[in-house]
Amino acid sequence: MKDVKQVSKAVIKRLPRYRRYIRDLKRKEVDRISSNELSNIMGYTASQIRQDLNNFGGFGQQGYGYNIESLDEELSNILGLTGKYTMIIMGAGNLGQAIANYTSQREHFNLVSMFDINPRLIGIKLNEIPVRDYDEAAEFIKKNNIDIGVICTGKRNAQQVAERLIEGGIKGIWNFAPIDLDLPEDILVENVHLSDSLHSLTYHISKKYDRE
Amino acid sequence: MKDVKQVSKAVIKRLPRYRRYIRDLKRKEVDRISSNELSNIMGYTASQIRQDLNNFGGFGQQGYGYNIESLDEELSNILGLTGKYTMIIMGAGNLGQAIANYTSQREHFNLVSMFDINPRLIGIKLNEIPVRDYDEAAEFIKKNNIDIGVICTGKRNAQQVAERLIEGGIKGIWNFAPIDLDLPEDILVENVHLSDSLHSLTYHISKKYDRE
Repeated sequence: MKDVKQVSKAVIKRLPRYRRYIRDLKRKEVDRISSNELSNIMGYTASQIRQDLNNFGGFGQQGYGYNIESLDEELSNILGLTGKYTMIIMGAGNLGQAIANYTSQREHFNLVSMFDINPRLIGIKLNEIPVRDYDEAAEFIKKNNIDIGVICTGKRNAQQVAERLIEGGIKGIWNFAPIDLDLPEDILVENVHLSDSLHSLTYHISKKYDRE
Repeated sequence: MKDVKQVSKAVIKRLPRYRRYIRDLKRKEVDRISSNELSNIMGYTASQIRQDLNNFGGFGQQGYGYNIESLDEELSNILGLTGKYTMIIMGAGNLGQAIANYTSQREHFNLVSMFDINPRLIGIKLNEIPVRDYDEAAEFIKKNNIDIGVICTGKRNAQQVAERLIEGGIKGIWNFAPIDLDLPEDILVENVHLSDSLHSLTYHISKKYDRE
């Protein structure tokens, strides 16, 4: 991996969004783009875009802009989207299955097992992915060197399930349970807050339709 | 609704996150907080916090900070989280059912129907929510004055389903399909990009574990 300077959390949060837009331009067969044009599409200022991307070495060129192909490659490298990440899902209910379906379409993720507490699910396969008992998770992670554990349980089981992931030595947790997990500081966690986007929507609806 | 000045997209995006943190403090029975303390928790600078919240009238007080109770109330008002929003879900598969389950636990949303194309689902109830035919959606929206349509279909049906929502006069679309919908400019849409948080996670994993 490239040597990069200390980058702020806010910049890192924006990088996946840059990559998404850049890949979209790539699909549309755009070759290069200026920070001004990118600013129009993404809604960040051109100077913010230049500043953000400068954090990772200046792959823009004055008067030419950014080469889409190489910017995509750089962003993918920075985001660690090179090889494959092994993944397990804790919770084989609707959400777990939806996430399983989602990741099966993603190139850098290899879902190897799901886990649940429900005896009717344990031992079966869901879309070819075996479902195992929560109790076996820590051992399974160790044995199979699992990178990412996805928490798709309800609120009530989330903390306990997270502790099993950590016990097994999981590298990162992708948490969908609507609760702040109480974890050691060095554990990498990304929480998905569905309410954030839903509440952006209610903001716009209430403004446009003048609801009281 | 309060009269507010023109506020940037970026600020609006941050508001749900402010509300989330403020409500968390409220649950922990904190009465007030300074912008500096809030900065420590949220990772924004104190001056950014003051600037953001000033957009909506200065409800912080010098030397006292923000009153949690009233900040929560103000943020909820701004975000339109007062009355109820009627909601339908397009797509009654795993994702649709997971979102149905999620919204059933939220106070401001009233899920009244799901819609699908699958004849085995049409006509039944899933957790007491009736499933109807996609073809009936536009009519249903008009008749029941539905506010929010959630798209939980696969990529392939998302565009067509979105057009039906618009035909019915939906106020806002919450889109989970991993595709950029091609919609009239005045339609309010929030896209949920699961990959953004997943790729933040891979960034941190690749950095910490020095994967190549």
